[in-house]
Amino acid sequence: MGLKLQGVLPPVATSFSQDEALDLNALQANLRAWNATGLGGYLVLGSNGESGYLSEKEREEVIAAAHQARSPEKTLMIGTGLESTRHTIAFTRRAAELGADCALVVSPCYYKGQMTPAVLEAHYQKVAEAATIPILVYNVPQFTGVNLPADLVARLSRHPNIVGCKDSSGNLTQLGDIIRLSQPGFAVFVGSATVFYPALCLGAVGGILAVANVLPRLCVAVQEAHQAGDHAKALELQRRLTPLAQMVTTGQGIGGLKRAMDLVGYAGGPARSPLPMPASDAPLQKELDALKDFWPQA
Amino acid sequence: MGLKLQGVLPPVATSFSQDEALDLNALQANLRAWNATGLGGYLVLGSNGESGYLSEKEREEVIAAAHQARSPEKTLMIGTGLESTRHTIAFTRRAAELGADCALVVSPCYYKGQMTPAVLEAHYQKVAEAATIPILVYNVPQFTGVNLPADLVARLSRHPNIVGCKDSSGNLTQLGDIIRLSQPGFAVFVGSATVFYPALCLGAVGGILAVANVLPRLCVAVQEAHQAGDHAKALELQRRLTPLAQMVTTGQGIGGLKRAMDLVGYAGGPARSPLPMPASDAPLQKELDALKDFWPQA
Amino acid sequence: MGLKLQGVLPPVATSFSQDEALDLNALQANLRAWNATGLGGYLVLGSNGESGYLSEKEREEVIAAAHQARSPEKTLMIGTGLESTRHTIAFTRRAAELGADCALVVSPCYYKGQMTPAVLEAHYQKVAEAATIPILVYNVPQFTGVNLPADLVARLSRHPNIVGCKDSSGNLTQLGDIIRLSQPGFAVFVGSATVFYPALCLGAVGGILAVANVLPRLCVAVQEAHQAGDHAKALELQRRLTPLAQMVTTGQGIGGLKRAMDLVGYAGGPARSPLPMPASDAPLQKELDALKDFWPQA
Amino acid sequence: MGLKLQGVLPPVATSFSQDEALDLNALQANLRAWNATGLGGYLVLGSNGESGYLSEKEREEVIAAAHQARSPEKTLMIGTGLESTRHTIAFTRRAAELGADCALVVSPCYYKGQMTPAVLEAHYQKVAEAATIPILVYNVPQFTGVNLPADLVARLSRHPNIVGCKDSSGNLTQLGDIIRLSQPGFAVFVGSATVFYPALCLGAVGGILAVANVLPRLCVAVQEAHQAGDHAKALELQRRLTPLAQMVTTGQGIGGLKRAMDLVGYAGGPARSPLPMPASDAPLQKELDALKDFWPQA
Repeated sequence: MGLKLQGVLPPVATSFSQDEALDLNALQANLRAWNATGLGGYLVLGSNGESGYLSEKEREEVIAAAHQARSPEKTLMIGTGLESTRHTIAFTRRAAELGADCALVVSPCYYKGQMTPAVLEAHYQKVAEAATIPILVYNVPQFTGVNLPADLVARLSRHPNIVGCKDSSGNLTQLGDIIRLSQPGFAVFVGSATVFYPALCLGAVGGILAVANVLPRLCVAVQEAHQAGDHAKALELQRRLTPLAQMVTTGQGIGGLKRAMDLVGYAGGPARSPLPMPASDAPLQKELDALKDFWPQA
Repeated sequence: MGLKLQGVLPPVATSFSQDEALDLNALQANLRAWNATGLGGYLVLGSNGESGYLSEKEREEVIAAAHQARSPEKTLMIGTGLESTRHTIAFTRRAAELGADCALVVSPCYYKGQMTPAVLEAHYQKVAEAATIPILVYNVPQFTGVNLPADLVARLSRHPNIVGCKDSSGNLTQLGDIIRLSQPGFAVFVGSATVFYPALCLGAVGGILAVANVLPRLCVAVQEAHQAGDHAKALELQRRLTPLAQMVTTGQGIGGLKRAMDLVGYAGGPARSPLPMPASDAPLQKELDALKDFWPQA
Repeated sequence: MGLKLQGVLPPVATSFSQDEALDLNALQANLRAWNATGLGGYLVLGSNGESGYLSEKEREEVIAAAHQARSPEKTLMIGTGLESTRHTIAFTRRAAELGADCALVVSPCYYKGQMTPAVLEAHYQKVAEAATIPILVYNVPQFTGVNLPADLVARLSRHPNIVGCKDSSGNLTQLGDIIRLSQPGFAVFVGSATVFYPALCLGAVGGILAVANVLPRLCVAVQEAHQAGDHAKALELQRRLTPLAQMVTTGQGIGGLKRAMDLVGYAGGPARSPLPMPASDAPLQKELDALKDFWPQA
Repeated sequence: MGLKLQGVLPPVATSFSQDEALDLNALQANLRAWNATGLGGYLVLGSNGESGYLSEKEREEVIAAAHQARSPEKTLMIGTGLESTRHTIAFTRRAAELGADCALVVSPCYYKGQMTPAVLEAHYQKVAEAATIPILVYNVPQFTGVNLPADLVARLSRHPNIVGCKDSSGNLTQLGDIIRLSQPGFAVFVGSATVFYPALCLGAVGGILAVANVLPRLCVAVQEAHQAGDHAKALELQRRLTPLAQMVTTGQGIGGLKRAMDLVGYAGGPARSPLPMPASDAPLQKELDALKDFWPQA
């Protein structure tokens, strides 16, 4: 299980039954279905995994279940960032015990005004020191209200146990700067499917993309076309991917993401309240119908 | 222990020992010291209580300790808002079992784009239905990145188990609108000490003010002057209060708040990492020296 | 015509005929009607005067027309702030020649990232040095995207030719800080009618309020009640004022403001395109009907 | 002088003498020097031309001077957007008389809250109807505080006299959406040099780039490498371009841009106050020294 940091990873949607209780079988069924695809791995307990909606016990159960269903050839990345340094360290170590290959650590964010670059740098250094698995830095300002600037990420890339990052800002100037300024070999993932192809052009090693829960093969095809030097095809696939990607993120959110999973044959199920479900399937169905060649059974 | 919703409440700083473990004795010592003041109660596990930095078990220990040390004449309000409706309900019910008089429920906020007024209204309605104690709505957009508009709060005020709110937006247009549009008897607290006096002029019933951890008597004096119709004195006290209030909130944050508590004789102690402590005591000391007549022993 | 800086001033709506050409007669008719009220003066070419929608020649015509219609007992304040220091100085001097008592200088704002406090301070110092009339600093971040912090305004208050400011941020913490930190005698006007009464409580000398174009007597009554120490009445009048004030600013904008002027008997007329006019008069009519005792003819 | 809309255009810096008066000779010298390069044209009176810092008369003088110095083989685009529809139309028609090939129309922005998509659409439709030359839509939210969403731009692309746009948001999701949703043949320019190469990958026809005032040949080389299918070279050139591009825009602004022009041999001169000049040449000099192979004389 060597750590390969590249390719497409879905930020795995956490499955619930209709009463919003954990449904670990459904989660495992999804992972097993994805094991047959070209995905590079899975991110469990990321933003799209409703991690903040789970209890401490539920989080551990999710990791253990994912570990059971994983393929040894795919990277098992676990989102372990919490608000305090203390609990982030403890949970990162616990995730390692439960089978994580590496950890994605979102920035603390509640006390936004106090989360200066120096404070964040110290936090990540302490977590990296204490962690028993490699960590990646996670920047998602649309959720956290805190941005990790490129020069901070570049400084962190110099720590031997900080091996990469996921940048979901959607800001390609920043992504380019991170890649340009970081240590060689630092694995930069983009977190916005709508700019996946141009991010690859700038040197990203892959994408951690919500829409990869729905159509992993389409996401993988974008990266394969880019790697093959077929820019025209990569752009064409990107243009097909973009509308669905927007619908299951900024448009309908996790409720839409899970509904889309159901519509193509994965286990979606409800999001936990207060997250809303789509009022109608029609918009999703329309986008999905245009992408039938990338459905799981196609 | 009838529920009296008015006056000044400190959002209690959670005490830690030097290694950042819970120090419940210190927490209780502070509450007991405040029992001799004119405070209307205490908010435990609010934003200034580093609630998001505590484990589930630690939160319960803090409530139990506060319940032991409380005065029966003061309101024990507990911050119980979590991201999911499910866990917010469970924790609100648990807080009631542990002695809470009422609960302050912060808005869910991580998936900001999905937290529409309709979604938030449904969340609060469900929590209010299931809670075994009265609840108050908590709006703190500088931390959550989500604002609860006045018309939403006014609609919620019609629910018999939603008895008040805390608005920390600092926006007095909004505070005035909430008071103007809500049900008669709905208790509107302001959460920004820098506008405490003008908020009282607009009809706020009191303030839940970080700086009340440090100089509760000064905060109470502002409200007493206003109630006595002595606007000149209320304004003068407000002007004395403002610089310290800014320093222990937007300036130095919780680290500064705790340091100021130490400097006047309460138990402050460290904030949990990554929250920083002030580099120097000098700025705080200077402000505090100008307010010696309101120190605990004065 | 001694310069009295206090009381209520309308930021005068610039009158246009139906083809959007200047209608100076209508403008003068409004000023003459207002001369019989308790207004402290008028601000001509402010934000609500569509100043940025006028040509250079039109601006001079407006000042000259206002000068003709003014009462010698009321302050004629002219908005003279432009983007460049050079043209702001020239226009401020020209406004003085055309009869201005003082000038309100909005912050330059187009190159937001470059408008640091030091840059803005130098700009205002140069304008104050070169101006032949006193100037006031104007902060309106909802339009400019630039905020003038309290300590900057306080430093500027030390210049002998900078005699006051208008703060339209709606932020009463900031307004309180400006009053607290500025030179004694520095005239601080609030620019948000929704917080007029609490701003007066904090020490503001008056308000420059869009809604004073519509119901000047109601605005003046708020301040008179406050000055008489009748806080209950001031608050009650504020609550009556607020909904209309919101409708003619953040709600329907200048189009709504002008329509409301027409509805009560002043000369409103169209706003210049692209500014929209209200789709229906009904919401304005409803608010105005509740305030008939403050209409011009009442 | 057929209208060719593609390639690199500098948003021409407007030249001033040391006393900040217009220096039309310097402006013309720059244009004549650029006539020997591969630039596709020039944008005169854009954001980087300090257009808002010029009087009405100065703007006409600048256009006339540019028209004299232009090459017939390069596109002369003029920034003609003003706040009102009325004056935007008049100035666009005047620019055509003075020799403009096409006009770039920035969105009105002062009354941000009123500038809804419907209002902006009506504005652009009216300008396009009345203009005697083709127009392009200009989106620059970092200056205007208003964003033109992709679906609005796509609707405008259907008007026969709206032939393209410049998007300076830096948001490549949005740029990709504009290209994907607009009429075939609609010319989409990117306005951020830091994402020039990935924007070309997405289908942009060129860039209107501040840094092209300094090193036009480097900017042109990026596009030539992309057109030749040499992505590795395009990325390498982009990485060399980025740091200088940041310094002369978000870093030091127009003051830095003009200083860099001086340092490589063009006519830079001062920016108008309040725009600041760099405190030191050293940072610019360092970046420029690394790019000597693209200096004008190299």
